Amino acid sequence: MAEKQRMLSGMRPTGRLHLGHQRVIEYWSTLCDTYDSFYFTADWHAITTQFDDTGHLRDNKREIVIDWLSSGLDPEKCHIFHQSDIKEHAELHLLFSMITPLSWLERVPTYKGQLAAFAEKGKDIATYGFLGYPLLMAADILMYRPVGVPVGQDQLPHVEFCRELVRRFHHLYDVNIFPEPAPIFSQIAILPGTDNRKMSKSYNNYINLSDPPEVIKQKVWGMVTDPARIRKTDPGHPEVCAVYAYQGFYNKEKQAEICANCTKGTIGCGECKKMLTDKINAFLDPIREKRAYYENNPQILDEIIDDGNRAARKVACETMEMVREAMKI
Amino acid sequence: MAEKQRMLSGMRPTGRLHLGHQRVIEYWSTLCDTYDSFYFTADWHAITTQFDDTGHLRDNKREIVIDWLSSGLDPEKCHIFHQSDIKEHAELHLLFSMITPLSWLERVPTYKGQLAAFAEKGKDIATYGFLGYPLLMAADILMYRPVGVPVGQDQLPHVEFCRELVRRFHHLYDVNIFPEPAPIFSQIAILPGTDNRKMSKSYNNYINLSDPPEVIKQKVWGMVTDPARIRKTDPGHPEVCAVYAYQGFYNKEKQAEICANCTKGTIGCGECKKMLTDKINAFLDPIREKRAYYENNPQILDEIIDDGNRAARKVACETMEMVREAMKI
Repeated sequence: MAEKQRMLSGMRPTGRLHLGHQRVIEYWSTLCDTYDSFYFTADWHAITTQFDDTGHLRDNKREIVIDWLSSGLDPEKCHIFHQSDIKEHAELHLLFSMITPLSWLERVPTYKGQLAAFAEKGKDIATYGFLGYPLLMAADILMYRPVGVPVGQDQLPHVEFCRELVRRFHHLYDVNIFPEPAPIFSQIAILPGTDNRKMSKSYNNYINLSDPPEVIKQKVWGMVTDPARIRKTDPGHPEVCAVYAYQGFYNKEKQAEICANCTKGTIGCGECKKMLTDKINAFLDPIREKRAYYENNPQILDEIIDDGNRAARKVACETMEMVREAMKI
Repeated sequence: MAEKQRMLSGMRPTGRLHLGHQRVIEYWSTLCDTYDSFYFTADWHAITTQFDDTGHLRDNKREIVIDWLSSGLDPEKCHIFHQSDIKEHAELHLLFSMITPLSWLERVPTYKGQLAAFAEKGKDIATYGFLGYPLLMAADILMYRPVGVPVGQDQLPHVEFCRELVRRFHHLYDVNIFPEPAPIFSQIAILPGTDNRKMSKSYNNYINLSDPPEVIKQKVWGMVTDPARIRKTDPGHPEVCAVYAYQGFYNKEKQAEICANCTKGTIGCGECKKMLTDKINAFLDPIREKRAYYENNPQILDEIIDDGNRAARKVACETMEMVREAMKI
């Protein structure tokens, strides 16, 4: 049987994951059947923008792995590791830095935008490391010589950067080590925030996987509905209602019925929200159970990371040997 | 007995060392009595400007260590290691990159000058790694928490960079890990090149430690003397003569006599050069002997590097534990 091809993705451990992330994790777990999958907490990346506030980094790394596992990532089917545990990433990043034109980094579309966004908040993140983060990302990816990387449209320039770097490395050292990783686009529908905007921490419109039932109730109660609907008997416009959008994700079988009743004015927003609350809580119950399991069995979590680190390190060592040989170091 | 304080220096392995370097090595070996001394081949640094031509890197690393040992660096009294063998340097460089303002690197005085010098030769070295090399140097240095670094005046901005980085790191993470390394200035007189300019590979005016006797003869024969002196009987001007300058280094006891005879026109340049050739060869003989010894005993060389790497790694691991703890990684 042919070995599965490798695939890699990661997330910055910057806090608890929300329902939007859960959909990504669910997608990640479907990829495990097709690919030999590596998922990592990008803790070094988290420092690029939070270098002055790293106090929660260790907790966040642990929590994000618990969130992954509880939302369905099967540690038997993939490798979960921490970026900073595989020092080879730092070495490859350094070696790549020697061949990466400065202009490539200066031209990454997100660079100036993010600098400006942080500057608006009064924070100067124009560090050498921040400029270089697409390069660190390229090292993270290429280390595992994957055939593909799951990405959103906004990360496409980073994958293109990776591919360019591969071509330059191969050209300079007359080798052929790295496949040019292809972007793997998911077809998952995006869950909006509770106010119908993009779900995001900065908008405070998110529902965390670890929110207890009372908090879910509260957050659903505060969700944005049709502003034109004052009384239950007013005909509603489900298409502008966040609650309705959520019913499509967590109460699919009742969505059509709710739509009909809402537009006829025969179901009130309160009732609709109560239904959603129950559905989200039911959806989260097994996730909560798994979370409790890992929280109560920290040694199992440690073992999962140890195993993942070992698998990652094995590939990383192979790659670095090839790279050092190519560069004659 | 109090432990000796640590001190560190390095050289880029870019080829055979010349007589000018030998004076630095001699100075290094005097420092071993005062300091717990670490000397390293800066092989990653060599790639910053030679990323497109790394074919000789491995040979050069070996040769430079042989040059160090044959010119008097005692491996029993110091630690000799290869930068790229201590992966912690890459990790510390990466972590420091997160807190180093881009502007600090852009303002390093040598940066734009070197870019321009290479551009004149038709080579574009404006890479991310080249911009960051003072940071890599800072990581190299600070890794060993040394109290001082032997430097020439031109490297002073790099030490200042190091000291600033220490202050920033301590301020951000509220720790006190690194002593601010002081520049250690040597008082060694500088040996000029055979044409009386600065001895440098690019001027082709150097005498290598590994040059065989015939080459020494040839190179001394081609040295720049007083251009106003045509015949032996013309009074010479030793102060403009490279041969005379060299007599001061390699034939000190005869220098006054030569000066007198040259200005009186009673010693010819040929005779003077012959004397110098013999003196330089006599000076190089024990160096050649040691070189032959290490060339014929590669396993001894390997052991020296292994020991040095081990000592370096021990300190590096201690430092990285402190750094990771400070940054809460």
